[in-house]
Amino acid sequence: MFSKSTYLNRRQTLQSGLGSGLLLFLGNEESGMNYRDNVYPFRQDSTFLYYFGIDHASLTAVIDIDNNREIIFGDELTIDDIVWTGPKEPITEKAAKVGVTEVKPTSAIGSFLKDAVSRGQTIHFLPPYRGEHYLKLQEWLHINPAEAAQKASVAFIKAVVSMRSYKTDEEVAEIEKAVNTSVDMHLAFMRRTRAGMTEKEIAGNLQSIAIAQGGDISYPIILTVNGEILHTHARDLAIREGQMALCDAGAETAMHYCGDLTRTIPVGKSFSGIQKEMYEIVLQAQEAAIAACKPGVLFKDIHKLASTKLVEGMKQVGVVKGDVAEAIEHDVHTLFFQCGLGHMMGLDVHDMENLGEQYVGYTDDLQKGTAFGWKSLRLGRALEPGFVVTVEPGLYLIPTLIDRWKAENKLSQFIDYNKLEHFRNFTGIRIEDNLLITETGNRVLGKELVKSVADVEGLRE
Amino acid sequence: MFSKSTYLNRRQTLQSGLGSGLLLFLGNEESGMNYRDNVYPFRQDSTFLYYFGIDHASLTAVIDIDNNREIIFGDELTIDDIVWTGPKEPITEKAAKVGVTEVKPTSAIGSFLKDAVSRGQTIHFLPPYRGEHYLKLQEWLHINPAEAAQKASVAFIKAVVSMRSYKTDEEVAEIEKAVNTSVDMHLAFMRRTRAGMTEKEIAGNLQSIAIAQGGDISYPIILTVNGEILHTHARDLAIREGQMALCDAGAETAMHYCGDLTRTIPVGKSFSGIQKEMYEIVLQAQEAAIAACKPGVLFKDIHKLASTKLVEGMKQVGVVKGDVAEAIEHDVHTLFFQCGLGHMMGLDVHDMENLGEQYVGYTDDLQKGTAFGWKSLRLGRALEPGFVVTVEPGLYLIPTLIDRWKAENKLSQFIDYNKLEHFRNFTGIRIEDNLLITETGNRVLGKELVKSVADVEGLRE
Repeated sequence: MFSKSTYLNRRQTLQSGLGSGLLLFLGNEESGMNYRDNVYPFRQDSTFLYYFGIDHASLTAVIDIDNNREIIFGDELTIDDIVWTGPKEPITEKAAKVGVTEVKPTSAIGSFLKDAVSRGQTIHFLPPYRGEHYLKLQEWLHINPAEAAQKASVAFIKAVVSMRSYKTDEEVAEIEKAVNTSVDMHLAFMRRTRAGMTEKEIAGNLQSIAIAQGGDISYPIILTVNGEILHTHARDLAIREGQMALCDAGAETAMHYCGDLTRTIPVGKSFSGIQKEMYEIVLQAQEAAIAACKPGVLFKDIHKLASTKLVEGMKQVGVVKGDVAEAIEHDVHTLFFQCGLGHMMGLDVHDMENLGEQYVGYTDDLQKGTAFGWKSLRLGRALEPGFVVTVEPGLYLIPTLIDRWKAENKLSQFIDYNKLEHFRNFTGIRIEDNLLITETGNRVLGKELVKSVADVEGLRE
Repeated sequence: MFSKSTYLNRRQTLQSGLGSGLLLFLGNEESGMNYRDNVYPFRQDSTFLYYFGIDHASLTAVIDIDNNREIIFGDELTIDDIVWTGPKEPITEKAAKVGVTEVKPTSAIGSFLKDAVSRGQTIHFLPPYRGEHYLKLQEWLHINPAEAAQKASVAFIKAVVSMRSYKTDEEVAEIEKAVNTSVDMHLAFMRRTRAGMTEKEIAGNLQSIAIAQGGDISYPIILTVNGEILHTHARDLAIREGQMALCDAGAETAMHYCGDLTRTIPVGKSFSGIQKEMYEIVLQAQEAAIAACKPGVLFKDIHKLASTKLVEGMKQVGVVKGDVAEAIEHDVHTLFFQCGLGHMMGLDVHDMENLGEQYVGYTDDLQKGTAFGWKSLRLGRALEPGFVVTVEPGLYLIPTLIDRWKAENKLSQFIDYNKLEHFRNFTGIRIEDNLLITETGNRVLGKELVKSVADVEGLRE
């Protein structure tokens, strides 16, 4: 937890930004797996953490701007509970540490909100993403679950985004801690991975490193010899000599700030010739993109820059032909690079994703694209000092997509489909780092994690 | 997945047991942590797994007994999805493997159920335990979330319990696989734990063993030097020489059958004198309880037997005085042993807990107790061949509870409160194994996991 003044100041800024109304913060509940009491690791809502800092289930907070009140609703443990849980810090004390003096039982919230509505106050809430959020909004505000998302407050969303997007020094320090643990996970991956291990075995080992350092993983680990499958999890599949293994894994700290790194390595001691060639294309794209990250530059344009580097590389290996700039205008890159270059990162690995990508990654004047490829770019807006972003280009040879484009003979003026057949089972490569945008450029966060072919192979001995 | 005939036979037996109506099986959804798409590891509902075997999110199944139809509702991946996920087995093929030939899109379920209701069919569903269950019951059947639990079908619950309680050979084999992985976790705990490690560090390491073997943990690992706190999780707390560490941890297999074991060890190489004495009291209670487990014996009575052994031990160390049998009648044991001796185990670690303890652990003629201690005994009914249960007595010295009893001078004819003060910070010990009830007695499942003082200390060298 940060100091009391951090939370007081954040809430004061938020109040000033919105000016009026009542802000409702739905803290998360424990989440049962196969029955209510067998729970997943508790994850507090990130916006609740940002303004109230309390990492504890079943709390709701209210900022009543009109009446200058801040209240946390939650139930203290009974003496009976304490027999089972041991003594715990009371909610009143937790609240005091973040500057909130008014604590009420959960049962009081229904009538509290009803009174506010009858006084004509506007109740602002953020988009729900858990079943319990919908149930609470229905119970307390009579909002039909089917309409809850569209009734979320755009003013509240924008006010939160306008604060959480700019990381303070103390937040950057915490993010860097998460990145450092993520580096440790990747060093273990790069040093210990051997043919014959299963993807799950390696992934479980990396998760234990995140847990040992006091937090947990910030998202399900992607650890696969099929790097071209963008949404995949580790399987009970033994990896083999000659394959590449892609690891996209990050830790979150005990305070829930995230890291998010990717490396791709040979399962054996070294890359094959073509693996090396393709790896270097991705690395050059990543390095060019990182060099371009500075205030005022549209991330959309950096995505285009990286895409250009990737297409230049694919031209070099003979798959793309013709003019590269023209090929990019026709979105040829989306055959190999179907997703976005990166995203904001902070208390969420895709920071504030629950608030809506249009509000987080774009602006009123810059709408998110709708075409294949561009619609998957989470961040398009101009970079500003204090943003923390990922830069993660890749090359993904997806048989399903190749077949589809080939059947349509799509953009055949730019693509040599015969040559492409040789890459059909190439799989995929991604290289990802985390950057802080500074006044003059950027800083790659965390301890160094090697990425040149020579350095990666050096760890494989 | 078991063979097709296993699932066909289970559903046939269930249909015969209920005779009429429409059975609704709510499969689980992916569960978002801090936003919708950042998900916890998927956990299918256990009853869905038992009858339909498909370990895949966002499915609903129906058995329409009156019209002899079995339908799985779910949405196939689109070509667009496959670009991101890679090719997956279609739901129709998964369904065929468990003998279901009718598959419909999720959008069809609302009108399907509406038609069934208007035909006058009774819709049976099981008690909800996730937010999404409540939302679906409301959307499809107009059931108010506040009333959903009490509208669950007792006939359906009882029919499911009457089947899932009796483990078949193929289920026992799968449970034994889970127990064996759990043994591996405990061997790592017993061999590798050293002073200076944090609780979380050790717990993370054990979880990686469960993941590496193809599944995950079956419940949040309890790994603590405060074994007396029954509901606790591993902390960022370095453990110290002289303390005991209690580990309650189990794996579940890829098929989601569970193991659940507990051992308590010295953080150093050996137990202190009093730790050893108390440990042996618990071990004797556990061995007596295991010896008593056989068909026809009320588990409630075995709980009482174990409690008697524990109180005899506490008399031996001077904390209890007077007649032990009489002390037990006054529930003196609940000062040291506040919870139950064990529970059913299967696809859930507390098997079928979501269906209600009264139905799972008791019978119409045997109601669960309401007094402190007894109300925490999940299983009371007579054991039968095929039951799989845990046997896990313990001694827990809980300062809060000691203070409360002492302040009331409660049962002072049996308790030497001055002597008890010496045990105030003793913490807790538990020893737990998993048993299959056989025709003639029981069999402890899995590879041997040592538990005598000498054997435990032998692993600490």
